[in-house]
Amino acid sequence: MKVSIVGGSGYVAGELIRLVLFHPEVELHQVISTTYAGKPLWVPHPTLNSSSCLTFSPMEALEETDVLFMALPHGTFMKTFTQYESLSPRIIDLSADFRLASPQEYEKWYGISHCCPHLLDRFVYGIVELHREEIRNTQYISGAGCNATAVILAVNPLIEHTDPHFPVVVEAKCGSSEGGRAPWPGSHHPERSGCVRSYAPTGHRHTAEMVQELAHPVWFSATAVEMVRGVLITAHLKLKEHLTEKEVWNSYRTQYGEEPFIRLINRKSGIYRYPEPKLLAGTNFCDIGFSVEGDHLVVIAALDNLMKGAAGQAVHAMNVMCGFDERAGLEFGGLHPV
Amino acid sequence: MKVSIVGGSGYVAGELIRLVLFHPEVELHQVISTTYAGKPLWVPHPTLNSSSCLTFSPMEALEETDVLFMALPHGTFMKTFTQYESLSPRIIDLSADFRLASPQEYEKWYGISHCCPHLLDRFVYGIVELHREEIRNTQYISGAGCNATAVILAVNPLIEHTDPHFPVVVEAKCGSSEGGRAPWPGSHHPERSGCVRSYAPTGHRHTAEMVQELAHPVWFSATAVEMVRGVLITAHLKLKEHLTEKEVWNSYRTQYGEEPFIRLINRKSGIYRYPEPKLLAGTNFCDIGFSVEGDHLVVIAALDNLMKGAAGQAVHAMNVMCGFDERAGLEFGGLHPV
Amino acid sequence: MKVSIVGGSGYVAGELIRLVLFHPEVELHQVISTTYAGKPLWVPHPTLNSSSCLTFSPMEALEETDVLFMALPHGTFMKTFTQYESLSPRIIDLSADFRLASPQEYEKWYGISHCCPHLLDRFVYGIVELHREEIRNTQYISGAGCNATAVILAVNPLIEHTDPHFPVVVEAKCGSSEGGRAPWPGSHHPERSGCVRSYAPTGHRHTAEMVQELAHPVWFSATAVEMVRGVLITAHLKLKEHLTEKEVWNSYRTQYGEEPFIRLINRKSGIYRYPEPKLLAGTNFCDIGFSVEGDHLVVIAALDNLMKGAAGQAVHAMNVMCGFDERAGLEFGGLHPV
Amino acid sequence: MKVSIVGGSGYVAGELIRLVLFHPEVELHQVISTTYAGKPLWVPHPTLNSSSCLTFSPMEALEETDVLFMALPHGTFMKTFTQYESLSPRIIDLSADFRLASPQEYEKWYGISHCCPHLLDRFVYGIVELHREEIRNTQYISGAGCNATAVILAVNPLIEHTDPHFPVVVEAKCGSSEGGRAPWPGSHHPERSGCVRSYAPTGHRHTAEMVQELAHPVWFSATAVEMVRGVLITAHLKLKEHLTEKEVWNSYRTQYGEEPFIRLINRKSGIYRYPEPKLLAGTNFCDIGFSVEGDHLVVIAALDNLMKGAAGQAVHAMNVMCGFDERAGLEFGGLHPV
Repeated sequence: MKVSIVGGSGYVAGELIRLVLFHPEVELHQVISTTYAGKPLWVPHPTLNSSSCLTFSPMEALEETDVLFMALPHGTFMKTFTQYESLSPRIIDLSADFRLASPQEYEKWYGISHCCPHLLDRFVYGIVELHREEIRNTQYISGAGCNATAVILAVNPLIEHTDPHFPVVVEAKCGSSEGGRAPWPGSHHPERSGCVRSYAPTGHRHTAEMVQELAHPVWFSATAVEMVRGVLITAHLKLKEHLTEKEVWNSYRTQYGEEPFIRLINRKSGIYRYPEPKLLAGTNFCDIGFSVEGDHLVVIAALDNLMKGAAGQAVHAMNVMCGFDERAGLEFGGLHPV
Repeated sequence: MKVSIVGGSGYVAGELIRLVLFHPEVELHQVISTTYAGKPLWVPHPTLNSSSCLTFSPMEALEETDVLFMALPHGTFMKTFTQYESLSPRIIDLSADFRLASPQEYEKWYGISHCCPHLLDRFVYGIVELHREEIRNTQYISGAGCNATAVILAVNPLIEHTDPHFPVVVEAKCGSSEGGRAPWPGSHHPERSGCVRSYAPTGHRHTAEMVQELAHPVWFSATAVEMVRGVLITAHLKLKEHLTEKEVWNSYRTQYGEEPFIRLINRKSGIYRYPEPKLLAGTNFCDIGFSVEGDHLVVIAALDNLMKGAAGQAVHAMNVMCGFDERAGLEFGGLHPV
Repeated sequence: MKVSIVGGSGYVAGELIRLVLFHPEVELHQVISTTYAGKPLWVPHPTLNSSSCLTFSPMEALEETDVLFMALPHGTFMKTFTQYESLSPRIIDLSADFRLASPQEYEKWYGISHCCPHLLDRFVYGIVELHREEIRNTQYISGAGCNATAVILAVNPLIEHTDPHFPVVVEAKCGSSEGGRAPWPGSHHPERSGCVRSYAPTGHRHTAEMVQELAHPVWFSATAVEMVRGVLITAHLKLKEHLTEKEVWNSYRTQYGEEPFIRLINRKSGIYRYPEPKLLAGTNFCDIGFSVEGDHLVVIAALDNLMKGAAGQAVHAMNVMCGFDERAGLEFGGLHPV
Repeated sequence: MKVSIVGGSGYVAGELIRLVLFHPEVELHQVISTTYAGKPLWVPHPTLNSSSCLTFSPMEALEETDVLFMALPHGTFMKTFTQYESLSPRIIDLSADFRLASPQEYEKWYGISHCCPHLLDRFVYGIVELHREEIRNTQYISGAGCNATAVILAVNPLIEHTDPHFPVVVEAKCGSSEGGRAPWPGSHHPERSGCVRSYAPTGHRHTAEMVQELAHPVWFSATAVEMVRGVLITAHLKLKEHLTEKEVWNSYRTQYGEEPFIRLINRKSGIYRYPEPKLLAGTNFCDIGFSVEGDHLVVIAALDNLMKGAAGQAVHAMNVMCGFDERAGLEFGGLHPV
């Protein structure tokens, strides 16, 4: 099967290209970039210099394909959906355009009205663990936000045990690649290096996705830390009743026992007792751990924002959609020490 | 006035020595260390090589002094209080031995029974902003925990507006110097570098101090990040009623308007809109910022755990206790970029 | 073919295990560790928790195998060679015991006399690019030192153009994983983080390997920097005559044109004009770049010290020795950004 | 005495402002910035929010002053010298405009011809340790380049022992603040973080200053590492004859025995055996260490590029020029751990 990528110069696109190049079931057909048209893929993606001789194509050269990944800035794809739908029977969008089912919520969080609300219900929210059957039967997928993915996966199995009057309170510790490729004063190394910087104490857009999927209020704050890839979220839940550690384990086991990309990390000793994002760089895992004391449950989850939080999640969804082995192309297990 | 320090080899002691050496009102008389007795101060504290020719003294050489700082491991000073009380009219303890007023709470959090509960009420909890008058009139001060200091200072002015049924939920992002000087597998650079590591999702001992001072339940979790000095805390509060940004400002202004070491950082633009611990390295400031949305208040506070969270706080308390200018010896304003 | 590893708890062993587990031609038979016998591989190697259920075996349980990797501390294998030689027809040693052909040089640099000098010529120095034919026909291989590998690969193609009266002057910038797994005061995060620390301005043991392979004097200094994996070396050469950039290129092309793991990186623009170790984490590449001005040539080379500098190099040598595709198991291309 | 600063928004200017604000002999009169005119100093310099209420002035508002620091981009001051000379009897320029005595060298390294070569000999090169008497008697000072300062101070005492046929070979490990305040793709955190990046293997402009001051050929290469402030240089010298460690010590002692800002760091044990830039952040020290083996001498030097390499050096020069205590305003001793 042929795969093409539109919007090929960003960090998520770089990961997508890497995954597709090493994927056993698909081949990379075209990568579209207006900025880099005609140049080799390794110009913006330096680690690809040994993997591919392909060059970027201009937008007008986009050909028919079997799967199309859209990696354009927010607000772009929804305006141009019709020009792509005829070129590919399957489209996986990595922007926020089709993440929210409600056009009202979209407008509230993104500040513009959605230009094609009638298309919203044709897109399935791309977290396989929650929407596997829908993804198997859809043409269109919307990849989830990276922080939203971590929070939703971590909290969802316990949400039925959570006091409905009490918001889930989440703090995310985020790497700099979440901010994308464009330099700005806040990403300048002397300013960003070693920072612990509250950048969204309230009002983070991914909150809308969390509330949609969890059907529960969420207070979400995000802090940038010294890390390039990865996110760690810490979520505090008030339980309806006291739960033992074993009961919490069971909730996770029941929901995720067979999941290939979810791992429960909850050790009594050692350095890595809880999830650690640096061990997940390049992998598609979401690692989840927790600590419970009576009716107070703390859930910790880590993932690579460019992988399980974006490109890896999208390939996982493609695998399900196309009937491939879910693990295909996503076997990398991470490095240690790193 | 003469100042001596017992337990002189740790990181907090190193900062204390630095502050005392440059303090205009006191002179460093003795620094006691069993390990380093006879060696120059710069052996464990390499930046002191130009500031002092003093050598460490053994414990048995400790002489009378005007102010005594105790920087021994937790549980040591309380067992030996009597051997120090005759040597100095003023003692400032930097361990946890006298932080909690309740011996029951001490035993619950520290796992051993307190050996001299009758002394507990002779020690004042060392946060000047909350206990200035008591500190002015005491002989004995117990320095507060670093994370506790940040949380208490950040949350206290708003605590009366906080819903009593709803714990304050706090996430701390902590530097590696909080763990002290002794190497262990978790502090080994290949493992600790670049980590975002949940080390106390529940059960952190500083929680006891927070609850004592705030008289409010606190859910506190702590995560180690890539930073040597500094802590940033993010606290979520449910307010009893909706507050405007101006009302929150006023609460802080009322309580901290004249405080020399509290700064409100809440800017609409720029890189440093909220407190940032790296800008505070070496300073005695606690910077506080916030974001409010209806009844949801997020408070952010940063400080240098070795300074405002330990040695600087202790010198501040000494200044108040001894009637010096509160700022004496604590004027360093921090570096940028860093 | 069956592969076993003796000395399985160190960082290099962790990488070896990872490579063998994903290698298409071999299977991991046993991993020996006295410390971890009976425990799962993921206890010291946390990223292996999804890849293998194997546990460590005690030394006495070591069985016959087809290839044996020795990853013991320096000085151990040479004393116990006879107990391993009957168990495996092929042995690849990752210690320094058999790197130097001269027992006098060994004693000079390692401070102890070599206990079995008669074995030295049975081991081939494991850099495939220089010793491919010998490796194809040997039973025993000695892996090269990580810094030595970078310097030798970078300098060797130009050594015939280098003024024999002028040492090659090399500065290495090294990550903390070079120091191994055991914590010590210098690896304690508050001390090691952000350091730029000259740890071997002269006298680094890898110098002996460089001189042996290059047959040219080398002045080598090493500086520890903030990095876990990777090394970058900068070598200054005085050429016998002026060379143009094209002539230098040709020297590299001639020697390395077909090499699967050597890449020349010498771009006129962009961020990554020269080799960059962070892009090589987890890969088996040695990237080489240069700048020439008349008779002054500066050569820059980067590699992952645990991969091309140790475990990857060893697997590459195994591939050659066993007649596998040289790239087998070593296809990972690295991550960006990271 | 009144001090004004022209070009007040850069990193070096920020340090200058900090130093002047805490200096006991001078007061900050004006800070000129076209970009920030009318705004408080803390807008670009966030740590100054507690130290000063001053606002930036526009260029046309510049008044007479006693000492004028020029911190404009290279090539700007030399074109406008006459508009400043009447406003201040003492000018200290921090750009490269007046560093090189030879206009030919200036043109060769900076690519433009010098517009006022007749002024070159009115400026003294600002390294006090080499030019104290000239600085005492001049009106005009040109601050040295940061890397050049480290190399010149480290190498100069041994240059007479160095083989004239053998260039001094220097590798510098540099922090990101050397690149200044403006973000660009190479300073974007995901790219710059954790890098070990050869950015000037040959052709670095500071080489011209080194050659001028040392009167000896220099091969200088520079590598960017994960650090914001600071530089560590490693210099290899071929000595004319074998020197003992004691002889090298004596050379340094003879030249620098009384210098307030030079420290020899050469310890046999401990973590900090050689100079370490992170311990020097915010200080005006240049720490120097070495290792000698026969006729091979390796010299290591560290400094804070914004302090001893720029603003601190300039204030030191001002102190000498104005007859103040040389240490005035430069007493900060650095932080540990950090």
